[in-house]
Amino acid sequence: MRIDERTCSALLMQQDDILILCHRNPDGDTIGCAYALYTALTMKGKRARVACADAYPKMYAYLTEKVVFSDFEPKYVVAVDVADVQLLGRLQQQWEGKIDLSIDHHPSNTGYATYTLLDEKAAAAAQIIYRLIEQWGCEKDRFIANCIYTGVSTDTGCFKFENTQSETHMIAAKVMDAGAEYQYINKLIFETKSKNRIAIEQMIMDTLEFYFGDRCTLIHITQEMLKATNMDYDQLDGISAKPRQIEGVSLGITMREQEEGGYRVSMRSTDNIDAGNICKLLGGGGHARAAGCTIDLPFAAAKQKLLDTCAPFFA
Amino acid sequence: MRIDERTCSALLMQQDDILILCHRNPDGDTIGCAYALYTALTMKGKRARVACADAYPKMYAYLTEKVVFSDFEPKYVVAVDVADVQLLGRLQQQWEGKIDLSIDHHPSNTGYATYTLLDEKAAAAAQIIYRLIEQWGCEKDRFIANCIYTGVSTDTGCFKFENTQSETHMIAAKVMDAGAEYQYINKLIFETKSKNRIAIEQMIMDTLEFYFGDRCTLIHITQEMLKATNMDYDQLDGISAKPRQIEGVSLGITMREQEEGGYRVSMRSTDNIDAGNICKLLGGGGHARAAGCTIDLPFAAAKQKLLDTCAPFFA
Repeated sequence: MRIDERTCSALLMQQDDILILCHRNPDGDTIGCAYALYTALTMKGKRARVACADAYPKMYAYLTEKVVFSDFEPKYVVAVDVADVQLLGRLQQQWEGKIDLSIDHHPSNTGYATYTLLDEKAAAAAQIIYRLIEQWGCEKDRFIANCIYTGVSTDTGCFKFENTQSETHMIAAKVMDAGAEYQYINKLIFETKSKNRIAIEQMIMDTLEFYFGDRCTLIHITQEMLKATNMDYDQLDGISAKPRQIEGVSLGITMREQEEGGYRVSMRSTDNIDAGNICKLLGGGGHARAAGCTIDLPFAAAKQKLLDTCAPFFA
Repeated sequence: MRIDERTCSALLMQQDDILILCHRNPDGDTIGCAYALYTALTMKGKRARVACADAYPKMYAYLTEKVVFSDFEPKYVVAVDVADVQLLGRLQQQWEGKIDLSIDHHPSNTGYATYTLLDEKAAAAAQIIYRLIEQWGCEKDRFIANCIYTGVSTDTGCFKFENTQSETHMIAAKVMDAGAEYQYINKLIFETKSKNRIAIEQMIMDTLEFYFGDRCTLIHITQEMLKATNMDYDQLDGISAKPRQIEGVSLGITMREQEEGGYRVSMRSTDNIDAGNICKLLGGGGHARAAGCTIDLPFAAAKQKLLDTCAPFFA
């Protein structure tokens, strides 16, 4: 059942021994939400703890390593920034059907929880957690401020992505005033790349090709590149945005070689090219600006098929 | 004479036929300030126009091409985001000694104007202009909102740099609510690179070297790279930050070959290495985190001299 913030904040105040679940492959938003909510509930005299199927990325240690949880048998289970129970990873089996509350911002939320507080327009789930903390009148200490700042900044690419709202900026201002260490966080998250990431980006951008009067770009990533740099695709977030970021380019294509052969293809486009329509012709799908498909052919043949399918869109 | 905002806003309301000067090599902040101030003064029934020594970068056309100025003999001259009269470029000769008001945020402002409204802590001069517009009670239409958003976002690297303040975010929120086309602006300014910029970045990052247990990185840029990509150093803003953005790196060095031979060296560091002290030993100077020097030697000898000077700092 969908509930509003007022109901949700009252509901949580009636509970104790609360388990907070993050999604697998945890990012700054799910972690920021969970640790901010944990802290606020603790301030309200409740026992709470956070659980996640996967290890937290090292860079979020400033949030995850500061807290020691007490042990207890959970009486109430809350999932934060989790669109689907499947995204609980190895925790799914234990908690599926037993989740009391989902606090989320994904339009794709499946309604797996008894109660759902969902704001599909919120740039980050941390914005919703911030509103709850405001309702409870909790002091926003530096740790909560860092949690919320981490959530809103990571889900918006540091306030650069299209999903950024005026509320996102307003909350950033408030938590900066509350002591959020935004300079440290920005540098750590947005200004630091690993040596291996730099190396593989260099290899990938060396494959850059231009087509259709420089209006279409193509990069490709091979298994060999991943092995040479000890990286996997999960660590290449943001890479498929790069080919489209070149001036005058309407369609940027990224081909990723699969372990079993064949290619996963991502397309990013600007308004005048519908990437979803192109990918549909190739058996895939997606939105006008971001879409994908799979082509089970060797590189040269896969590329030719891609270009042949794209050609009419540039005619 | 330094004046405060209240005095400044009253002062400007007493003037008419106002010329607004930008700095040479105009950026988003000086342009945003000038066009926002022009628009607000016009709303207040005054004649105003904007002048700049250099052509506006094409990407700011959404601000600069929307306005047609009327012609008049200026009675009052205001410089915005201009730290020094020398930064007026070819307009210096005409206006030096005749500038009535300087609205600025550079700590290095030389006090060249009769009155100076200076906030050294402001992340962008556009923040100060915003405060003036608030004082006048002007309607913040979409054009003013775009001007202010452009100023605050460009001077903070889209809210990522250390200079970002909570006020910066607060103003961003306000102008987004007033209709600022932040999605268009972010994409244009922060997500678009020219084909030539991509090509030269690739060449530059191919020169990346690691020293002192990967704690020091070095890149170099040659005249040949600039020629091959039809770029000049002015178009490479932000490049010297790149070598330090690698995980674990305390000092990032950029060597730029000069036309007349020899190298301009930029150093960027984290807290534990004082780049200013290193550059002083090489006849240059700067701050702990950002410093520079010149070495008039061929590449191999220049690099050796640099590394020899840096070595004790990594001992």
